[in-house]
Amino acid sequence: MENLDLREKELEIDTLGEAKIISPLKLSTVYGDNIANYVKDSDTVLFYHDKNKILDHIKKGKPLIAFEKAGPRQKIYYDPSKTKAGIVTCGGLCPGINNVIRSIVMTLFHRYNVKTIYGFRYGCQGFIPGYGHEPVLLLPEKVRDILGKGGSILSSSRGPQDVGEIVDCLDRMNISILFMIGGDGTLRCSQAIYEEIKKRGLKISVIGIPKTIDNDISYVEKTFGLETAFSIAAEAIKSAYVEASGAPYGIGLVKVMGRMSGFIAANASLALNVVNFVLIPEVPFDLEGPNGFFKTLEKRLRNRGYAVIIVAEGAGQKYLRENIEGEDDSGNPKLGDIGIYLHSEIKNYFKNNTDIYVNLKYIDPSYIIRSVPANAHDAIYCMQLAQNAVHAGMAGKTGMIVGRWKGQFTNAPVKLALSQRKYLSPEDPIWLSVLEATGQPIQMVNE
Amino acid sequence: MENLDLREKELEIDTLGEAKIISPLKLSTVYGDNIANYVKDSDTVLFYHDKNKILDHIKKGKPLIAFEKAGPRQKIYYDPSKTKAGIVTCGGLCPGINNVIRSIVMTLFHRYNVKTIYGFRYGCQGFIPGYGHEPVLLLPEKVRDILGKGGSILSSSRGPQDVGEIVDCLDRMNISILFMIGGDGTLRCSQAIYEEIKKRGLKISVIGIPKTIDNDISYVEKTFGLETAFSIAAEAIKSAYVEASGAPYGIGLVKVMGRMSGFIAANASLALNVVNFVLIPEVPFDLEGPNGFFKTLEKRLRNRGYAVIIVAEGAGQKYLRENIEGEDDSGNPKLGDIGIYLHSEIKNYFKNNTDIYVNLKYIDPSYIIRSVPANAHDAIYCMQLAQNAVHAGMAGKTGMIVGRWKGQFTNAPVKLALSQRKYLSPEDPIWLSVLEATGQPIQMVNE
Amino acid sequence: MENLDLREKELEIDTLGEAKIISPLKLSTVYGDNIANYVKDSDTVLFYHDKNKILDHIKKGKPLIAFEKAGPRQKIYYDPSKTKAGIVTCGGLCPGINNVIRSIVMTLFHRYNVKTIYGFRYGCQGFIPGYGHEPVLLLPEKVRDILGKGGSILSSSRGPQDVGEIVDCLDRMNISILFMIGGDGTLRCSQAIYEEIKKRGLKISVIGIPKTIDNDISYVEKTFGLETAFSIAAEAIKSAYVEASGAPYGIGLVKVMGRMSGFIAANASLALNVVNFVLIPEVPFDLEGPNGFFKTLEKRLRNRGYAVIIVAEGAGQKYLRENIEGEDDSGNPKLGDIGIYLHSEIKNYFKNNTDIYVNLKYIDPSYIIRSVPANAHDAIYCMQLAQNAVHAGMAGKTGMIVGRWKGQFTNAPVKLALSQRKYLSPEDPIWLSVLEATGQPIQMVNE
Amino acid sequence: MENLDLREKELEIDTLGEAKIISPLKLSTVYGDNIANYVKDSDTVLFYHDKNKILDHIKKGKPLIAFEKAGPRQKIYYDPSKTKAGIVTCGGLCPGINNVIRSIVMTLFHRYNVKTIYGFRYGCQGFIPGYGHEPVLLLPEKVRDILGKGGSILSSSRGPQDVGEIVDCLDRMNISILFMIGGDGTLRCSQAIYEEIKKRGLKISVIGIPKTIDNDISYVEKTFGLETAFSIAAEAIKSAYVEASGAPYGIGLVKVMGRMSGFIAANASLALNVVNFVLIPEVPFDLEGPNGFFKTLEKRLRNRGYAVIIVAEGAGQKYLRENIEGEDDSGNPKLGDIGIYLHSEIKNYFKNNTDIYVNLKYIDPSYIIRSVPANAHDAIYCMQLAQNAVHAGMAGKTGMIVGRWKGQFTNAPVKLALSQRKYLSPEDPIWLSVLEATGQPIQMVNE
Repeated sequence: MENLDLREKELEIDTLGEAKIISPLKLSTVYGDNIANYVKDSDTVLFYHDKNKILDHIKKGKPLIAFEKAGPRQKIYYDPSKTKAGIVTCGGLCPGINNVIRSIVMTLFHRYNVKTIYGFRYGCQGFIPGYGHEPVLLLPEKVRDILGKGGSILSSSRGPQDVGEIVDCLDRMNISILFMIGGDGTLRCSQAIYEEIKKRGLKISVIGIPKTIDNDISYVEKTFGLETAFSIAAEAIKSAYVEASGAPYGIGLVKVMGRMSGFIAANASLALNVVNFVLIPEVPFDLEGPNGFFKTLEKRLRNRGYAVIIVAEGAGQKYLRENIEGEDDSGNPKLGDIGIYLHSEIKNYFKNNTDIYVNLKYIDPSYIIRSVPANAHDAIYCMQLAQNAVHAGMAGKTGMIVGRWKGQFTNAPVKLALSQRKYLSPEDPIWLSVLEATGQPIQMVNE
Repeated sequence: MENLDLREKELEIDTLGEAKIISPLKLSTVYGDNIANYVKDSDTVLFYHDKNKILDHIKKGKPLIAFEKAGPRQKIYYDPSKTKAGIVTCGGLCPGINNVIRSIVMTLFHRYNVKTIYGFRYGCQGFIPGYGHEPVLLLPEKVRDILGKGGSILSSSRGPQDVGEIVDCLDRMNISILFMIGGDGTLRCSQAIYEEIKKRGLKISVIGIPKTIDNDISYVEKTFGLETAFSIAAEAIKSAYVEASGAPYGIGLVKVMGRMSGFIAANASLALNVVNFVLIPEVPFDLEGPNGFFKTLEKRLRNRGYAVIIVAEGAGQKYLRENIEGEDDSGNPKLGDIGIYLHSEIKNYFKNNTDIYVNLKYIDPSYIIRSVPANAHDAIYCMQLAQNAVHAGMAGKTGMIVGRWKGQFTNAPVKLALSQRKYLSPEDPIWLSVLEATGQPIQMVNE
Repeated sequence: MENLDLREKELEIDTLGEAKIISPLKLSTVYGDNIANYVKDSDTVLFYHDKNKILDHIKKGKPLIAFEKAGPRQKIYYDPSKTKAGIVTCGGLCPGINNVIRSIVMTLFHRYNVKTIYGFRYGCQGFIPGYGHEPVLLLPEKVRDILGKGGSILSSSRGPQDVGEIVDCLDRMNISILFMIGGDGTLRCSQAIYEEIKKRGLKISVIGIPKTIDNDISYVEKTFGLETAFSIAAEAIKSAYVEASGAPYGIGLVKVMGRMSGFIAANASLALNVVNFVLIPEVPFDLEGPNGFFKTLEKRLRNRGYAVIIVAEGAGQKYLRENIEGEDDSGNPKLGDIGIYLHSEIKNYFKNNTDIYVNLKYIDPSYIIRSVPANAHDAIYCMQLAQNAVHAGMAGKTGMIVGRWKGQFTNAPVKLALSQRKYLSPEDPIWLSVLEATGQPIQMVNE
Repeated sequence: MENLDLREKELEIDTLGEAKIISPLKLSTVYGDNIANYVKDSDTVLFYHDKNKILDHIKKGKPLIAFEKAGPRQKIYYDPSKTKAGIVTCGGLCPGINNVIRSIVMTLFHRYNVKTIYGFRYGCQGFIPGYGHEPVLLLPEKVRDILGKGGSILSSSRGPQDVGEIVDCLDRMNISILFMIGGDGTLRCSQAIYEEIKKRGLKISVIGIPKTIDNDISYVEKTFGLETAFSIAAEAIKSAYVEASGAPYGIGLVKVMGRMSGFIAANASLALNVVNFVLIPEVPFDLEGPNGFFKTLEKRLRNRGYAVIIVAEGAGQKYLRENIEGEDDSGNPKLGDIGIYLHSEIKNYFKNNTDIYVNLKYIDPSYIIRSVPANAHDAIYCMQLAQNAVHAGMAGKTGMIVGRWKGQFTNAPVKLALSQRKYLSPEDPIWLSVLEATGQPIQMVNE
């Protein structure tokens, strides 16, 4: 992901106009006075962190690519007393959505004195009159106690709605800032809304807060909910370990989410280091053959008597592709079920090729790992994403998402985030940690 | 279950001989001196609790059926310094096994000064030399820190081993007391071992500690691990509720263990009261038809927009029986998968019969609910079962299990516990609570 | 506690009049038809469970004492369409209050079609106009999502209010059934309200649901919240164990609630069996002297290098009494802080009498153990208490509490429950378990 | 913290000599081949992330300050077959110590084939023969199941031991690499050991892994255990909130660790956003006066009826200093107890100055928050710190700590980390988040 040759232009944030109103936040503009500060549009977060790369770029006259730093601006675009905001949550559930909703409401209401905030229900269906989902007024009272709740108090839905109708709704309701919490599809939709608004010459800011439990949004270090998700997935691993080590030739097989990206699987395997094999979409493997997974698993069983395997749902699709076609409601390609496939193929392998009678226990925690409330880590992250989303929206920025890079919060053009999907590179330090922690072969492929 | 016409004889506990040795426990034999007391063999726990039933029995000259009360006896049979004990864990895992193991070891070692305790590994395979599973010496040091671990530190296995070989092993190793932790099959095995020991005239006590996550052992109020299991199942229900209420026409479907008995399903639905339908083996239901489950579910969805369903694995087998035959390794009949069946049939029903597009999320927590460590409630229960098992064993009792009845610990003949399986009666108060809590129809059957 | 010589009369439940209205619950009156049943007023739960004691009573012509069994009656007193109910929560917080509130509301609303249910806020202050706490209408919508919340959504307060004013309020608001959730003081208040209502000839039922985290209500096997409380207390014990064993001569000292009764301390020590000493109000101990606690602790430290101690707040008050006088807001005698006292006295003992430098870590989890939400066990218990409270109230019963005895739900006169406080007897099986689990001396007193 | 003017020299890592042995890890040296890579000594992590600052430095000819990147080197210094390693844990407990121990052992044993790893017990006492704490051989078997355990399996101690004796021990036992897990004092000790080793011309690598629950080590973005600690602290906050909102004029007051730095308090207040006031050492406040804390609290109570306060133990020491003097065993200045002080002073304020009768509930979770096992986040972090510590040690680096900066693992000279203590600056984004989340005044001081 660091090999990109970004042009500076691509990181610029669009705004609706000049921010002329003094922020009600009353922060400092001076560093060193021990008072919290406003952030300037010129504050940045460098894309690279390696000194030699930076010096090399400078020597070659290439620009230093950097994100705009997120945070409260001294001057804002919207007059709080006249501002109405909207929030919508789309796509699959994810830990922390309610934390984001709550902090957007609390920050708008208490810090910026924006008193009218609508929640659109059931995703983008909420904009379309035909569905009959009335928007709900979100007051502090209404969101105070939602921190312990999983899911989204606004409910969600998949699938696109007509962009024109959405903008009609925003215009009709006089919404100034729309906060869209969603994944790849939602961000794509937010880009279309942003463009339609621009075409119509409306003054509506569209701010995305990336939500994907798979952590596969580019230029965002980590999406919210991931930490909670792999914490819960680690519980399933613990069960798999208990089952595997509790029976003769026990195998614990856990399938977790991760359609294209193995972040949950990799992190979970590190969070509870009793996993022997991590199978993810980004690292190809063969099942059969002398270097293949089955043979390696057999060796492990013969040496140690049990094994724990975690597989991301998108792994090993080459073995399933032929039988599957089409897309799901969100337009993602349908996947074959690698968990069920491995469950039966592992059994077959040992039955047909060895004298080992395996005790295979299959665990698919499925929705359990995404419908829990955010843990403490994600709760903080969600709050800070929301606060920065509000700061960006009030400043009149638009067509952007809030993200994080090198531990700093950033404003990034939504278009950039959509330009490619984020994968877990086998050359990332985290995969090295997985190899070191599991001891699995660097590659399980035959020539 | 209360309709049984037990004969007094059936509740008598067999012993290996007269208990002549003074217990090292140094308890009191006097009530009222504020010092913990020994329990007498004549102390009992009545089978019934209703006054009128008792009076009626007395009037009719029928005996009052009662269990022997468990607890430490003033005189014990075995000389602690010469006693060797064995522990084995069989069948499926269950929360609390390690707690039972630990407390047996700690009570034998520290209270009775029995210093030689062997753990047999991988269930009854551990008795059979051919498997090569060496018994492990269980010292306090070895078990001190196992309370937080799920599963069994001794590992387990299913399937019967030759009773003669087992008794050979006990005899050869000079085991005085064998503690068998296991379910229906294991108790059956313990009965056979007990009989073989008797036939050979050996002085070996066999004490069973019933272990079944399904809670289906008769004459035992509740088996250990059940509380933990339904606590964890309730977490899956929470996820199902979040998912169901988070999408248009959302349905959360959770399958939990319970082959013949719906205790986990029923308790879990009460533990997190957001369930609308509880389907268990003991309460028949139709899927189709005007009073059937599908039509009732449809009404719920039209009225409330979402629904949460919990189904025990043994429920609705009449819809699956035809395709399934044979038995599993423990000799239990194989079941069809009602969860997967409902998953697809509910979708079909709504697709073919209604205009509703349901968002069905299926959660099968499977082994997660049984491989966790015991919660605080089960930890106490396991400890007390183990303490009482040790007291019974040291007193030379045999062919029995420790259980609980009306909140008291009991000694019961293993034969009695095997005489029938325990079911959740639709006339038990707990099912009334389920009906009141869910609001589901008392019956979902067509004439 | 079992030595009471209760008169049958004392267990009779008062009613407001004949129950003539057919219950809307549509249950069965026939046992054996596999349909949940109504409970009859003549159904009972025997006080004793020992066969010999029962037979002895009969031989001596003494009546068999038994509680009335709780549950839904076929005929009810109140016409649901005209019934208004009230709920109030008083005294200290306790896990499960919100579960009770929720189930009362849900059962009244959905099962009995009682649509008007008021919550009185801030305890009995809520009845007194001067405080300005408006009653809140409790609809299902309002209570659906409160299961995960600790405390009481109605808030609570201590201290008595004028009984006449309370009854004025009930009369004025036309309340038919008042559910009072509270401890000793609250039940005393409920008795006074009940008597005042009777004096005035009003038709208002008063049903108590005993709430005391100390579990010190007589004739109630276990109060709700206790299980959750000792589960959480066990977490503090785990920390104490980690700290004690993590330092040279480490001592972990945990203080838990239990003013007069050591149930939390005893159960917590069993729930996490790493405790070496349990000090409770019911079992006297000396600190000094050859058999005293300090000397015993010293032996433990010399032998094992660390020790874990749990002390109930009411233990060892003889060492603190002299400096304390007066009562708290609820009229309970003020206690000296045994935790802080032991903290300093243990250090002094080792400093002044030994060469051991102890690392003493003191943990007082205080309100943490009572402000958490109910765990699964208590959630079920609370629900069933609430359901049975509603059944009793709708049947026109009054001046009573719902309780549990021998695992069955009971209706008991509030007066009886107030007749004495419940203590943990050193002759109860649970204390024997504590002695066996900790290995502490049966007595730590000098002659 | 970013205002430092570091000299490049200060970030250089010392080594024992040239690394000539080929690492057994078999990683790649080529980027882009999808195989995990070795890290080069010239790989860096820049100290700053702001583009303008970087460009300004370059313009002024100042060097770009950067940390050496941690990770496996292609050539290592020690011959694995002859290498013995030692591990010691010092100072107070902290979540994750066992994770670090386990990963050091696993990585040395399985990845580098270093088979002899000693654990020194009870901190630096373990090096001194007089204490009689025998070193323990740490094999994978011994550490496999310690992930769920809080504390340190090696136990710990405070207070310095003689550096000469420590080095004598290392020399005598032929230790090649010493891993020291500890805080400020321990790192200071590791520096002294490193210098003594150098003076003696020994070839022993000393690698520190910073451990401080207060997160107050400079040049380390975050110390392990912090995430777990504030997660648990957030539970105490939840209790405080429940208690505060459950009583008339309720106040929940929580004291948490943080002697000099308010990271736990600040993060916990964000993790459960129901806190109204966060008091930390770095942000001075007055109690009395028109802008003071008491007056502000009074306003909150009058407006909202309740308040939740979290205070770090080192906050407000100006009110306590006069009565306290001296240092604790680790040489830290003794602190007065701000929690107990506020507990009584808040009550006094309201009693003496207002008509409000406050219900103040004080919670001091104390050791609970540090003795729990690491959560998933810290588990991963600890593992990666340990892996990188092993890589550094095997490469012959010494006098250093492993840390993290901008999300990357770094090697940093221990001297640098000791040069100053890390504080939470009121100008850090996290404090801004706290202000926004709590709504507390930016300053609570009078002129």
